[in-house]
Amino acid sequence: MSKYETIKQDAYRQNMALPKLGLVLFTFGNASVADPSAGVFAIKPSGVAYTELTPEKMVIVDFEGKVVEGDLRPSSDTKTHAVLYKHWPAIGGIVHTHSTYATAWAQSLRDIPIYGTTHADHLTTDIPCAPPMADEMIAGDYEYETGFQILNHFNDHGLDYKEIEMVLVGNHAPFTWGKTGEKAIYNSAVLEYVAKMAVLTEGINPDAPRLKGALIKKHYERKHGSDSYYGQV
Amino acid sequence: MSKYETIKQDAYRQNMALPKLGLVLFTFGNASVADPSAGVFAIKPSGVAYTELTPEKMVIVDFEGKVVEGDLRPSSDTKTHAVLYKHWPAIGGIVHTHSTYATAWAQSLRDIPIYGTTHADHLTTDIPCAPPMADEMIAGDYEYETGFQILNHFNDHGLDYKEIEMVLVGNHAPFTWGKTGEKAIYNSAVLEYVAKMAVLTEGINPDAPRLKGALIKKHYERKHGSDSYYGQV
Amino acid sequence: MSKYETIKQDAYRQNMALPKLGLVLFTFGNASVADPSAGVFAIKPSGVAYTELTPEKMVIVDFEGKVVEGDLRPSSDTKTHAVLYKHWPAIGGIVHTHSTYATAWAQSLRDIPIYGTTHADHLTTDIPCAPPMADEMIAGDYEYETGFQILNHFNDHGLDYKEIEMVLVGNHAPFTWGKTGEKAIYNSAVLEYVAKMAVLTEGINPDAPRLKGALIKKHYERKHGSDSYYGQV
Amino acid sequence: MSKYETIKQDAYRQNMALPKLGLVLFTFGNASVADPSAGVFAIKPSGVAYTELTPEKMVIVDFEGKVVEGDLRPSSDTKTHAVLYKHWPAIGGIVHTHSTYATAWAQSLRDIPIYGTTHADHLTTDIPCAPPMADEMIAGDYEYETGFQILNHFNDHGLDYKEIEMVLVGNHAPFTWGKTGEKAIYNSAVLEYVAKMAVLTEGINPDAPRLKGALIKKHYERKHGSDSYYGQV
Repeated sequence: MSKYETIKQDAYRQNMALPKLGLVLFTFGNASVADPSAGVFAIKPSGVAYTELTPEKMVIVDFEGKVVEGDLRPSSDTKTHAVLYKHWPAIGGIVHTHSTYATAWAQSLRDIPIYGTTHADHLTTDIPCAPPMADEMIAGDYEYETGFQILNHFNDHGLDYKEIEMVLVGNHAPFTWGKTGEKAIYNSAVLEYVAKMAVLTEGINPDAPRLKGALIKKHYERKHGSDSYYGQV
Repeated sequence: MSKYETIKQDAYRQNMALPKLGLVLFTFGNASVADPSAGVFAIKPSGVAYTELTPEKMVIVDFEGKVVEGDLRPSSDTKTHAVLYKHWPAIGGIVHTHSTYATAWAQSLRDIPIYGTTHADHLTTDIPCAPPMADEMIAGDYEYETGFQILNHFNDHGLDYKEIEMVLVGNHAPFTWGKTGEKAIYNSAVLEYVAKMAVLTEGINPDAPRLKGALIKKHYERKHGSDSYYGQV
Repeated sequence: MSKYETIKQDAYRQNMALPKLGLVLFTFGNASVADPSAGVFAIKPSGVAYTELTPEKMVIVDFEGKVVEGDLRPSSDTKTHAVLYKHWPAIGGIVHTHSTYATAWAQSLRDIPIYGTTHADHLTTDIPCAPPMADEMIAGDYEYETGFQILNHFNDHGLDYKEIEMVLVGNHAPFTWGKTGEKAIYNSAVLEYVAKMAVLTEGINPDAPRLKGALIKKHYERKHGSDSYYGQV
Repeated sequence: MSKYETIKQDAYRQNMALPKLGLVLFTFGNASVADPSAGVFAIKPSGVAYTELTPEKMVIVDFEGKVVEGDLRPSSDTKTHAVLYKHWPAIGGIVHTHSTYATAWAQSLRDIPIYGTTHADHLTTDIPCAPPMADEMIAGDYEYETGFQILNHFNDHGLDYKEIEMVLVGNHAPFTWGKTGEKAIYNSAVLEYVAKMAVLTEGINPDAPRLKGALIKKHYERKHGSDSYYGQV
């Protein structure tokens, strides 16, 4: 048995959640789960149908993007995952999808405005959309540079990856993350849900205001921090 | 066996209806069922997945919002339920969701115009959207104040909670209620359905007129009052 | 056994198709099947959930709208069905729904423009929207008058009920019909599908042209008339 | 057993994938699979419900559109398939649907702009919309001419059918193809997905830019050509 059995099982479970949540068509997505202490993560093999996935098929990759264990090629987005794990030590799972509404926002090159408490329950800012990369970065090591594009956007705008666990990559699609793979999947579904409601909100009222500060603060603190009172202790 | 067994079973059943009707993602919603004679209601525990709910996990709370029975924390929205039960004695069930279309209207800060008979079959006015609360109320006992925000909006606009069994809380999401928990759930699904059709109506015809008085009256009376003739006797 | 067993079984089957096709929420719809030689039709009882329907619960009504057999009240829309059966002898089934997109068009008080061949495969004109009734008709025998509103709209605009098997009742919702109950159900689903695509078409291109005459003629004749070549002989 | 057993089985399997992928209502679609060496293809019989399909019911037709084997009439779109197989020797499967979003674009008479990498993963240009045919072609051998309308549009615009495996026929609906029937079905679902996201993108940002060249190139080469690195070797 692989010494990475735990994260392989977990990565398998999280990948299988994607079609169940309606977040992927065919193989348009991937999830990974990291073991930060071992400096590796388990990720979906590239282009393998969800119906044919097994825990054994998960590929173990280190934080430089090198395959450590596994017979199959890892997801083509593997280097993006590796960059994020390497630079953001607090995350344990990453998910990439082309889910319909979130991807439409990414294609629109707009941040998703914070219009309501559903959004504020999860983060206190607009959902950031990183701009498309410069041409020379695209032509280079593309997936590796995608990771840096995300990191740079967060750094340039003073965004905290522990507070904002999702990003739209302009013209491309969303990435989400979290302390665990399960949280990253959860964030992926939340993002799609919030993205859909934001489109509808603008259709109903093109002048809909962003949520006011007092509500943002309150809803976020209900779920986060020392005074949170959502969920069980 | 708990002396509140009946409402616990009922609250469980109504909560389980929410995912079946497509009205919730994860734990974004809650239903409660009251026993007005005992001055208590049974409500979903906070943050517990629908797949893990059981009747035993329902929490019994009094109309001041104090837990009377149960090992788990009640829904974070419990005080809103308590305020409504305390002041509106004729209601036996309350439902809160973040269902997509109704929430988009709430985020848009607009009442849902009465565009057709589907709407008029259930209420004779636009579906009211209560404005967001003043900042000091938000910073205070938020869920408690949310209940008062709803009550005040109904009082200020001369709305009758026995005739209008639903409200949008601005920037937040809908609450619905009814004589029973089942009716509250029913209203929740009706609201989402009407909310979707209203968005579409405005997309097809931005100048679509509100339903005229004669049709409002007729459709409502088909289902309500002494001369109603919808359903069985 | 009832001498109307055949149409009761058929009406039951057609009513049960409505939730399967996603055309109804709760009890927002009804289907009937006629036996023109006997001058009666079988229709859904009013307000009974689809999960509780049985063939025995279908109500037999004559073309004047009088109940001939059955313990339950017939659908509140029964008189509309009766009027159509009485005046349009070639129809054997009628369906009424509040399906989302078709109802949104009805609420918009617009005919659905013929934008493509999917529409033209079924009818050669825009899908007509009858205007809301005059107030005195609404206050009178409403469902009876709804039938006449449809008849009058077809007469006034020279529409042939054998060619155009569907109508939107303004501010209300669609009715469809056909030689059989199964055809009426089929038309109900087609209408919803065409209604959705027409909304989308106008969103993509507000200046989208109506389908040109040559294509209307061709597609319709593929499916109808002596030179039709769609389907099996 | 038919000597065409293999393509009949395959055509059956691909046709059955259409309702599973949500791409057809009733019989609004058809798939075929060719055996180029034998100069024939297997196609769905016309107007037969998916629930009643069997491999035996598939009809074998040659590239002139003549039935070679089978008791049922082939799909009314058979001649369009025949023309494409005859002139485009590298394709092994063709699919025609009236899927909602792709058809709405066809009705809008617009190419689908390339707004993101989901699109670029599959083709490097806008998805072409061939204009409606001239009236005399429509009145003539319509389905045969539809095939030529597609061929001519590709020729006139210098489009390569091996690179662009899909087309919208203006006012009508999409056709897709591929080296195999399975690939044609895959393309059909991809087209619908991309079509939906493109509508949403324009709703969110009416000035959304087309994807820039460097990203188109990169994403396409990830999946195609000698340096591709998507999927397994």
